[in-house]
Amino acid sequence: MKKILVLNGPNINMLGVREPGVYGTATYDDLCEMIRKKAEELQVAVDIKQSNSEGQLVDWIQACHNNADGIVMNPGAYTHYSVAILDALKSVNIPAVEVHISNIHQREEFRHHCVTTAGCTGQICGLGLQGYLLALEYLAGK
Amino acid sequence: MKKILVLNGPNINMLGVREPGVYGTATYDDLCEMIRKKAEELQVAVDIKQSNSEGQLVDWIQACHNNADGIVMNPGAYTHYSVAILDALKSVNIPAVEVHISNIHQREEFRHHCVTTAGCTGQICGLGLQGYLLALEYLAGK
Amino acid sequence: MKKILVLNGPNINMLGVREPGVYGTATYDDLCEMIRKKAEELQVAVDIKQSNSEGQLVDWIQACHNNADGIVMNPGAYTHYSVAILDALKSVNIPAVEVHISNIHQREEFRHHCVTTAGCTGQICGLGLQGYLLALEYLAGK
Amino acid sequence: MKKILVLNGPNINMLGVREPGVYGTATYDDLCEMIRKKAEELQVAVDIKQSNSEGQLVDWIQACHNNADGIVMNPGAYTHYSVAILDALKSVNIPAVEVHISNIHQREEFRHHCVTTAGCTGQICGLGLQGYLLALEYLAGK
Amino acid sequence: MKKILVLNGPNINMLGVREPGVYGTATYDDLCEMIRKKAEELQVAVDIKQSNSEGQLVDWIQACHNNADGIVMNPGAYTHYSVAILDALKSVNIPAVEVHISNIHQREEFRHHCVTTAGCTGQICGLGLQGYLLALEYLAGK
Amino acid sequence: MKKILVLNGPNINMLGVREPGVYGTATYDDLCEMIRKKAEELQVAVDIKQSNSEGQLVDWIQACHNNADGIVMNPGAYTHYSVAILDALKSVNIPAVEVHISNIHQREEFRHHCVTTAGCTGQICGLGLQGYLLALEYLAGK
Amino acid sequence: MKKILVLNGPNINMLGVREPGVYGTATYDDLCEMIRKKAEELQVAVDIKQSNSEGQLVDWIQACHNNADGIVMNPGAYTHYSVAILDALKSVNIPAVEVHISNIHQREEFRHHCVTTAGCTGQICGLGLQGYLLALEYLAGK
Amino acid sequence: MKKILVLNGPNINMLGVREPGVYGTATYDDLCEMIRKKAEELQVAVDIKQSNSEGQLVDWIQACHNNADGIVMNPGAYTHYSVAILDALKSVNIPAVEVHISNIHQREEFRHHCVTTAGCTGQICGLGLQGYLLALEYLAGK
Amino acid sequence: MKKILVLNGPNINMLGVREPGVYGTATYDDLCEMIRKKAEELQVAVDIKQSNSEGQLVDWIQACHNNADGIVMNPGAYTHYSVAILDALKSVNIPAVEVHISNIHQREEFRHHCVTTAGCTGQICGLGLQGYLLALEYLAGK
Amino acid sequence: MKKILVLNGPNINMLGVREPGVYGTATYDDLCEMIRKKAEELQVAVDIKQSNSEGQLVDWIQACHNNADGIVMNPGAYTHYSVAILDALKSVNIPAVEVHISNIHQREEFRHHCVTTAGCTGQICGLGLQGYLLALEYLAGK
Amino acid sequence: MKKILVLNGPNINMLGVREPGVYGTATYDDLCEMIRKKAEELQVAVDIKQSNSEGQLVDWIQACHNNADGIVMNPGAYTHYSVAILDALKSVNIPAVEVHISNIHQREEFRHHCVTTAGCTGQICGLGLQGYLLALEYLAGK
Amino acid sequence: MKKILVLNGPNINMLGVREPGVYGTATYDDLCEMIRKKAEELQVAVDIKQSNSEGQLVDWIQACHNNADGIVMNPGAYTHYSVAILDALKSVNIPAVEVHISNIHQREEFRHHCVTTAGCTGQICGLGLQGYLLALEYLAGK
Repeated sequence: MKKILVLNGPNINMLGVREPGVYGTATYDDLCEMIRKKAEELQVAVDIKQSNSEGQLVDWIQACHNNADGIVMNPGAYTHYSVAILDALKSVNIPAVEVHISNIHQREEFRHHCVTTAGCTGQICGLGLQGYLLALEYLAGK
Repeated sequence: MKKILVLNGPNINMLGVREPGVYGTATYDDLCEMIRKKAEELQVAVDIKQSNSEGQLVDWIQACHNNADGIVMNPGAYTHYSVAILDALKSVNIPAVEVHISNIHQREEFRHHCVTTAGCTGQICGLGLQGYLLALEYLAGK
Repeated sequence: MKKILVLNGPNINMLGVREPGVYGTATYDDLCEMIRKKAEELQVAVDIKQSNSEGQLVDWIQACHNNADGIVMNPGAYTHYSVAILDALKSVNIPAVEVHISNIHQREEFRHHCVTTAGCTGQICGLGLQGYLLALEYLAGK
Repeated sequence: MKKILVLNGPNINMLGVREPGVYGTATYDDLCEMIRKKAEELQVAVDIKQSNSEGQLVDWIQACHNNADGIVMNPGAYTHYSVAILDALKSVNIPAVEVHISNIHQREEFRHHCVTTAGCTGQICGLGLQGYLLALEYLAGK
Repeated sequence: MKKILVLNGPNINMLGVREPGVYGTATYDDLCEMIRKKAEELQVAVDIKQSNSEGQLVDWIQACHNNADGIVMNPGAYTHYSVAILDALKSVNIPAVEVHISNIHQREEFRHHCVTTAGCTGQICGLGLQGYLLALEYLAGK
Repeated sequence: MKKILVLNGPNINMLGVREPGVYGTATYDDLCEMIRKKAEELQVAVDIKQSNSEGQLVDWIQACHNNADGIVMNPGAYTHYSVAILDALKSVNIPAVEVHISNIHQREEFRHHCVTTAGCTGQICGLGLQGYLLALEYLAGK
Repeated sequence: MKKILVLNGPNINMLGVREPGVYGTATYDDLCEMIRKKAEELQVAVDIKQSNSEGQLVDWIQACHNNADGIVMNPGAYTHYSVAILDALKSVNIPAVEVHISNIHQREEFRHHCVTTAGCTGQICGLGLQGYLLALEYLAGK
Repeated sequence: MKKILVLNGPNINMLGVREPGVYGTATYDDLCEMIRKKAEELQVAVDIKQSNSEGQLVDWIQACHNNADGIVMNPGAYTHYSVAILDALKSVNIPAVEVHISNIHQREEFRHHCVTTAGCTGQICGLGLQGYLLALEYLAGK
Repeated sequence: MKKILVLNGPNINMLGVREPGVYGTATYDDLCEMIRKKAEELQVAVDIKQSNSEGQLVDWIQACHNNADGIVMNPGAYTHYSVAILDALKSVNIPAVEVHISNIHQREEFRHHCVTTAGCTGQICGLGLQGYLLALEYLAGK
Repeated sequence: MKKILVLNGPNINMLGVREPGVYGTATYDDLCEMIRKKAEELQVAVDIKQSNSEGQLVDWIQACHNNADGIVMNPGAYTHYSVAILDALKSVNIPAVEVHISNIHQREEFRHHCVTTAGCTGQICGLGLQGYLLALEYLAGK
Repeated sequence: MKKILVLNGPNINMLGVREPGVYGTATYDDLCEMIRKKAEELQVAVDIKQSNSEGQLVDWIQACHNNADGIVMNPGAYTHYSVAILDALKSVNIPAVEVHISNIHQREEFRHHCVTTAGCTGQICGLGLQGYLLALEYLAGK
Repeated sequence: MKKILVLNGPNINMLGVREPGVYGTATYDDLCEMIRKKAEELQVAVDIKQSNSEGQLVDWIQACHNNADGIVMNPGAYTHYSVAILDALKSVNIPAVEVHISNIHQREEFRHHCVTTAGCTGQICGLGLQGYLLALEYLAGK
């Protein structure tokens, strides 16, 4: 059975509370449940983690080395400046799909520039919570 | 039954021939077949079109007004400068998912900037031909 | 009798449908009728054309050479990047007035920069459909 | 009867003397006369003022509050940097048309960027002194 | 008794009329009254002046030399480009606190860059009319 | 009784040791004591925390949700790049005042650009330790 | 016998009419005749095409795949922004020489930046119509 | 006898008081006396004026039209942004020498860029008060 | 005996695994051993620490205050954006040598810009693991 | 008989040794021989010189004044920053063709910007050593 | 008797031949004679040198150390990029006046930026050959 | 015995005289002696050269081809713009270590950008004259 890490960065845990006009009203628990249900359906094992700390996210990505088959990652704000996460992804060299709930290209200029994405296989943005499930599906099928 | 337009921009028709290191060896016909098979599975009607002309792409997007339920679009090179396509998408206001076969964030600087994406619901990039199928799945389920 | 070409670029044909908050609710047909009525009043012959294709717009501008006395042109999105239209205008060297329905200086940063305008006599923007009529009046009186 | 303020900024009073290759040989008095004649024709009251001082222009714009029905304004050089005039226009919220005698898009790079225009309804540029009359006509008809 | 100059730049006199969504509905007279009341409370003498003219503001700042113990200054739009006011502040070398009613960091990009502030002791922004009172309190206590 | 979180970011704990020419010789303990004394005076409850970790600061901001009435925050170096802190502030939507001890507009170019401030009510900078007390006063009175 | 496509972009067909100070007085027919004469001399087959449409130019480049031995191309204005033409050239991977009649480095800033050239073997500019003949000679000899 | 206007912009009147490390300790009166003495020596009539107002400076430059043989001008801070002064200089077309007391190339980045200088014959900077005398000498000899 | 802190930032612990083409095949343990051996040779005490967390690195730098005689630091990705680490280095004011294993000037554009280095005595880059030993030697001899 | 100077700048003498993947394996002597042979064929006199020194190249260009009928020049690295060579070319005003062996538009960003080319008639790049021969042919025929 | 070095950079020796519309028709010999005559008048010893080589200019500036009382320098094109000349000027620390014959602020954008000037006392530009004499006069009087 | 070239660029010969606050008081002779002593200790042959001329430095680097085992190079000011030196280093492909006496990251913005370093193995900066010795040690041990 494939093992997939689902990694959520800063403020993703505030889903439902955080700017509902942008991120919707489903909560972080709703998201986790959706992911777990999809994982079961796809017959993959998922481990879902969230941290507001860049260093913690790097630690978890490094821990995937020889230990996971894929990463679904929403680095939140760190997407736009974390060279540390980029370097971690390049260090472990595991298929990773970056997910953004909102369409970053419709938001502030500084959210149009992605630093971490170059360390991933690809990116899904703007498709809401659904983006996580599609990413999972992609990695499961790979 | 939902009607979905699959729109391919410049040079997508060269798939299989075009820089195989970047785009893979599957041909454009292979792509069309994959899409049609997935559409059948999802029970949606797809219309697949390709053009190298920005104006033609705008024409086809406009024609979706009151006439289609979703657009899967790979605007190719136009992604990075076609304000005309952006304006067309905003004119018709239909759910649209932009797809890029390669991870644009790993390529030349000028491919990191997306103009058309702000007119779409979201974007999937770097997941190969699979990106089209995930986009279709998203629109079918919406 | 003076001959004036009225040239509309991409998405102008979507007037009435397209972002009514920005462009108003009058339709493209309404616009054409207003222009024809004004032309009659000014005793000038007008030919009104619309295309979403940059190449087609260039073709029509070139065709004005020795064939028209003025151009009223709304290049839409192409205003901001079409060096081809700029070069066409410089090739034929006929009085041309660029018209924009909305005030481009109140919109996205990229709409503040005009490429095609340097090939025209001048520009009218933000005065709604009225801009076309003032342009016509200017060219009729020249 | 509508009341319209015609406001001229720095160096407009030098018309006829100032760079005739760019601005033509008609004098400032010629311009005022043309405006007054047009106003009569349109049955609107015009008040024509000129100042080289940014602060004075701001004072006059503020004085329009509850006191004028429209502004025709050529802020000259201030167009390109006066946030103070922009803020004044937004404070009074009266229809205003910015006029430039020359086509600013054919001149130095720094004249392509307009600061004050975002506070106006729209802009007419490059149509010579005629631009003032068209602006007046627009405001009279509004 | 300390003497403090309260200096207001362009369009501050339009308070209550000017963009109430940004600046609130209290009028300029309300502001003056609040300041005077606070000054009394703090036992400092205040002189409140307003001008739309950059030159006038420079004159008043220069006049503080050997003549005032502090300046509370809202340079309005001039904040973003007036090197003349910056130089005036450096010439007199008196404690000065810049005040902005709105949070300039939440507004247009060009309002994020402050030119005059480098000539002041510090800046208070976004705290509404209250910002003036806090500035006064700071200077009184210094 | 209002509850206010006073949050200090990286290197604020080094006050007294750190570049005394810029930050003064009062120590971090002196600062805490000043804040507590002022809080007592204003009859508000304060909780003072300091961390060098961006993630920890985000955690503490999130914890204010439904739990605090205001935030006085000096994000130190993170002010200039932490989109994560900006997003946290927007998630909890509590009145927050950003404080900087030094006048950031008189220092290196990169300290003139503030990322986190757009998530706050406003900012006080350059008024030394006094800035914290004025921020507290503002929030107490709100 | 080698087959070479000579491709002319927007406004090249206006040669002789278009800005003669920049492009000279020889007409497009003169150019075609010069090319055909040279081709005969070099014993290569040439096919000369011109279009104002970016999409058409892309179509013709794609059609060279397995069908031509070289391309002489003057993309005119598209040189400076057509990523679509760049991508088409990379797709077919045939020796291509870009030709510009004028010295683009002596003209407007925006003509100094070439997008399409990276898809070619090289570029000849500023040598007038002669540039086409030298390009032909190069490809014939390759 | 030649008539020369010596025009001083904002804060030049603060000489002696203003940042003596940059501008020296001689006062504005000392400067005026030096200029008058030199003028006598050179047998030219000088008129020395100072204003902090950009508009006033423009007025005085315009007044030189048919009325003065040369201008020695220190536009102070306005050097770096006053397009209005640039335009005024171009309107009157009289030999003008710009003078700066300090070496602007050794100061803040924004003082390296000169807007008004393009309207002058030339510029002398960094030679202290002596610069005025050399400028006078140049204009007297012309 | 001198005490030197050797501080490694994000992903340095992945040495041997991480992009071996860039960083070589020696492991992090190999590096630590090399450093300890050299320290013994130089008769200095070394303390080697590694963290992926920016905040942790700041904590450790602060802890050097009155507690270490030098710092050898490889801040990894944080080199390019951590103002927090820069500020920490300036707070403690201890000789520090920044080390990069690879030649950052041969890599992506964003790795050419160093933020933390201005807080150090100097930098050694591109000399592989040897760089650490040279840095140690420098600090030992100081 | 026409006299043509062939001028080679820095590192062109290293041909054959220098980055053979970019510049090929033919040596500098091979290049000189090719040029001499072509010159004979074209019946023009050539003088071939090489220097690594910018000043020497300027000297040689100046020496062409009234002394040569054309220049074929490969300024190597100086192409991208030597205003001195640009000015020399403008001083002598002789037909000059700039040659680059590699396609500069396919290399590092800083090689896309050409400073010296504006002083030449035109430029040939990317056509290998052949570029020199085509340049010679152009100048011979002029 | 004061010793002054007059240093001319690249292409100044071409005076009279070089772009006479910009630099006038007086020759380099005329300039030298003017300078020598003025030096005699001012009773200073001058040594006039010219070189097209940046390194030679640096050598001559270094040679002034303990050997000259002032430098009049026209670094020509090197003004805009020679950090080597800037550093040489800072090394010898002798009063130096930079002279430009033309008004660099009226020419190409890249001539507006001066690198070497920060190493001088000041700069005179646009006053033609007269600029050298005024510089000499300034240094003689110092 | 290994042969190492020690190459010093412009103004390094002024050591001891040149800005002692930045570069220290040791003279160039002191530096040479230190290097020779270290070389003896390391049992490598050193050849120390200095030139202010970019072309001369390129000549010497080229001469290392098949003739030296390493280069220690301080290109001084040329570090920041000499593409010619970069190209020379790439041509000879010998291990080279760039040395800067001062910490370039603590100085003017333009000294933060290094052009030549990409042609070297690595760089040591800010460690004073010691940097040369460490570079020598590195190359000796390689």
